[in-house]
Amino acid sequence: MAKPITISLDAMGGDHGPTSVVPAAIEMTKKYEHLTLILVGRQELLEEHLRGLPARLRDRLRIHHASEVVEMHEPPSQALRGKKDSSMRVAINLVKDGAAEACVSAGNTGALMATGRFVLKTLPGIDRPAIISAIPSQAGHTHMLDLGANSDCSPEHLYQFAIMGSVVAQAIYNIPRPTVGLLNIGEEEIKGNETVKQAAKLLNQSSLNYIGFVEGTDIFNGRVDVVVTDGFVGNVTLKAMEGLSRMINLRIREEFSRNALTKVQGAISMPVLRALKRRLDPRSYNGASLVGLKGILIKSHGSADSVAFANAIRIAMLEVEKQVPTRISALLETHVGGRQQQQAV
Amino acid sequence: MAKPITISLDAMGGDHGPTSVVPAAIEMTKKYEHLTLILVGRQELLEEHLRGLPARLRDRLRIHHASEVVEMHEPPSQALRGKKDSSMRVAINLVKDGAAEACVSAGNTGALMATGRFVLKTLPGIDRPAIISAIPSQAGHTHMLDLGANSDCSPEHLYQFAIMGSVVAQAIYNIPRPTVGLLNIGEEEIKGNETVKQAAKLLNQSSLNYIGFVEGTDIFNGRVDVVVTDGFVGNVTLKAMEGLSRMINLRIREEFSRNALTKVQGAISMPVLRALKRRLDPRSYNGASLVGLKGILIKSHGSADSVAFANAIRIAMLEVEKQVPTRISALLETHVGGRQQQQAV
Repeated sequence: MAKPITISLDAMGGDHGPTSVVPAAIEMTKKYEHLTLILVGRQELLEEHLRGLPARLRDRLRIHHASEVVEMHEPPSQALRGKKDSSMRVAINLVKDGAAEACVSAGNTGALMATGRFVLKTLPGIDRPAIISAIPSQAGHTHMLDLGANSDCSPEHLYQFAIMGSVVAQAIYNIPRPTVGLLNIGEEEIKGNETVKQAAKLLNQSSLNYIGFVEGTDIFNGRVDVVVTDGFVGNVTLKAMEGLSRMINLRIREEFSRNALTKVQGAISMPVLRALKRRLDPRSYNGASLVGLKGILIKSHGSADSVAFANAIRIAMLEVEKQVPTRISALLETHVGGRQQQQAV
Repeated sequence: MAKPITISLDAMGGDHGPTSVVPAAIEMTKKYEHLTLILVGRQELLEEHLRGLPARLRDRLRIHHASEVVEMHEPPSQALRGKKDSSMRVAINLVKDGAAEACVSAGNTGALMATGRFVLKTLPGIDRPAIISAIPSQAGHTHMLDLGANSDCSPEHLYQFAIMGSVVAQAIYNIPRPTVGLLNIGEEEIKGNETVKQAAKLLNQSSLNYIGFVEGTDIFNGRVDVVVTDGFVGNVTLKAMEGLSRMINLRIREEFSRNALTKVQGAISMPVLRALKRRLDPRSYNGASLVGLKGILIKSHGSADSVAFANAIRIAMLEVEKQVPTRISALLETHVGGRQQQQAV
């Protein structure tokens, strides 16, 4: 049997709180016998959600009481200073204290990042944690970061993101030597702003598998494994993709419900449309890592249902198995070492 | 009959040159009897393409010889200094000289922007021209700028883009008082970088219909008419959308060609899929304006076929009819006036 894993869940976070977290937790403990989950939130409420479960599951679904909840639009500083007994904070504390190996929350991104950074601290050599997620591409997945943690980034930050992205792509999707591209508005060296030009220099000197500048289209065409950008560009791009997917889905439905004939045509091709929907289902990509911390912290989409939240738990398990933070530290040391040697030459 | 319009076309630009430009030109002169087009490029080549046309069309399809061609990956400075007789340069000169009221080119964006700026100059009060295009949304269209002319933008530049975007949305799509949003990574005032925060202050003081920060999803959900951002974010987002659309199209085709049954299902729903494709067809959105110049310059996608290029000509016609540059100047004057008055109070 696989080595036991314990993960804490912010059971009150997200738009749906325990309504999506608890079913996801039950599903995952059913599926993985080596998994224990600690549900953090209001004791009585969570007990009610777990009532009637067989003992073999109930034993691996613990409850840890926390009296407060961070609201979805609460300012990060207020959550951090004012709500020390929030489900989010307590769930992260469990990782800090060694009671859990990873934490998953669907709560407010800003508060999660601020709390994660405050409680867990960043890894040595990492100035700022970043948000990374797998995005579906023609070849499988592209790992993209930062998706919104840092609006303004220095070349050094982008360089650190590239290292973290390489480790995650290697760890989660078993890509031996992931290709890394720097997002820009053209592939030529003269293109882009000063920050990306300087970051390109750092990456060219590194031992990463850096392939140069990539463009927006390359996120999807399978040309590159890891796409590095600042949190402003990353977040806008991610949300634009969400918006476009939603619009296309809407248009497909509209076209098929136009009249009696198109409805029949829609019904006939329903199995194919369903398969298509499954393949593009954003829920199977839910779960972004807040990388660069001394601990594993996974952000689920605020609107995640139980299927999507379960996927975020799956990603947390993978990061635990592959010891992502330890591997980032190791790669960072060889890189810093390598660069210092180069500078010494 | 409508007032006659004359437009110059860079007949050698883009991936296909005259092969897509000339059929588009013929199509448009057939459709609009008040339209005259000047095809700029190699005389003999263009004459060959026009051979056999009836006189009533041939009279409104003039040829203007230019001996050189700007290559698709040629550096802008080289094109500007080294190729004074390029089809692109000569086509823009015709606007400057008053021989044409607008110019359309599918050539190299950087060279087109540099040449347009050098030959036509920017409007008073505009520091930098921007690239604007209509993007399909749930409600119809969203006008977005800058799509790649300026990597680094000041708050003042974003403010000028907002004015230009409002005029274009008003002129081209008859929206009386277009709503304007500033692209950001959240709607709260504390979100984002210093540049967007400062730009928001300028926009709040303006008489534009400014609705505040918008996010990537809002490009598609019909919440806002004009989305303002810098050329780095705009270009990356635009290309990411192209990449995603292409991937979804590919997936649809894959799913329907999986086996004999899905092929039959695909054949049955073909009319609906075709209608869907037409509605999302990027060709019907081809034609971005280089706004902020003392003249109308339309950029067609480099890979545009004749259908797409014809659409770019249609946009040039609309901008001529609605006198976009004059209206930008007028709006800019009232705004600068308004702001000076406010400051004086």
